[in-house]
Amino acid sequence: MSLSIRNQIPGTVTEIAAGPAMAAVKVSVDGGVLTAAITQDAVADLGLAVGSAVVALIKSTELSLATA
Amino acid sequence: MSLSIRNQIPGTVTEIAAGPAMAAVKVSVDGGVLTAAITQDAVADLGLAVGSAVVALIKSTELSLATA
Amino acid sequence: MSLSIRNQIPGTVTEIAAGPAMAAVKVSVDGGVLTAAITQDAVADLGLAVGSAVVALIKSTELSLATA
Amino acid sequence: MSLSIRNQIPGTVTEIAAGPAMAAVKVSVDGGVLTAAITQDAVADLGLAVGSAVVALIKSTELSLATA
Amino acid sequence: MSLSIRNQIPGTVTEIAAGPAMAAVKVSVDGGVLTAAITQDAVADLGLAVGSAVVALIKSTELSLATA
Amino acid sequence: MSLSIRNQIPGTVTEIAAGPAMAAVKVSVDGGVLTAAITQDAVADLGLAVGSAVVALIKSTELSLATA
Repeated sequence: MSLSIRNQIPGTVTEIAAGPAMAAVKVSVDGGVLTAAITQDAVADLGLAVGSAVVALIKSTELSLATA
Repeated sequence: MSLSIRNQIPGTVTEIAAGPAMAAVKVSVDGGVLTAAITQDAVADLGLAVGSAVVALIKSTELSLATA
Repeated sequence: MSLSIRNQIPGTVTEIAAGPAMAAVKVSVDGGVLTAAITQDAVADLGLAVGSAVVALIKSTELSLATA
Repeated sequence: MSLSIRNQIPGTVTEIAAGPAMAAVKVSVDGGVLTAAITQDAVADLGLAVGSAVVALIKSTELSLATA
Repeated sequence: MSLSIRNQIPGTVTEIAAGPAMAAVKVSVDGGVLTAAITQDAVADLGLAVGSAVVALIKSTELSLATA
Repeated sequence: MSLSIRNQIPGTVTEIAAGPAMAAVKVSVDGGVLTAAITQDAVADLGLAVGSAVVALIKSTELSLATA
């Protein structure tokens, strides 16, 4: 499968904080830790757990920039 | 300034493709290249050019995950 | 590849309006036509053209609801 | 009311998983089921329940594409 | 029509920068100016021009917070 | 820090509905009340409480428009 989603960052799940509807999933990647807010369904569907190998996907329109 | 935006990735602008309304800005970061689609106004306001030091900002709700 | 992205709708590209940075891609799906605003890079990378078979991907956090 | 939101898909609520802040709402539409992550306030405000007729709204910038 | 979109801010269009695919529309609102990046189709469909009365719509998941 | 995020609206936190993963934060601003759905981590990190002075940040691609 090829995705139009330009930003694809490989990493490993390090923490999952789950609620009834949403979950906050922490992923360690090159140079830091990312947080994804996804649905509980998605966590269950993908069988995500600490140690899962994942790829973080970010559409370019969702990426802002800051300068010092 | 502290941001609720969980994902903050430092990098350097490597390319800017500008249109009348929007611009696609490529940023080299640890482990790869990210693309941000931001407004032309923002590019001008921040004075972005190839070589600019930036931080990529991604709200956690905008980050999806994939497994192999 | 399994995606945390909950909404996946198959369709066919019917039109592409391309700019220097972004492109608006129309996709005919069951029951109507969707529009995706993606980067020009993505259009080229995926080799999208009228008639391309695609799947529209929408993160659940990006979907609002309306009632009459 | 006319919306700039290009993607408007009619459907019926089939399930609501509610948390203190957010809710995951499943909507059956032509050709499948969509999931919307909206606030609990919105669920209450719109009086959403299983069987509610809704329209799913998706801004074009939030729609990605995949090819096989 | 009732929307799950929590943030609805009335204003007036003050400027439109249009590209082939996208347009950046400036809207004066109580206390400042907002910018919306929407498709060219949407600008044409809604007949937007300088002086148009509009309501800016922002899903709660798209709103971040900063502290000084 | 300068942000590419075009929409920056100052306000004051008036309510926080917190879940295990996400929180819905209400902010009173000029002319109304906004709702932000952010992670619980962010609420804790920024030390948000009723009365906190904040700035609401909205990327232009996340802002839709409606006409009557």
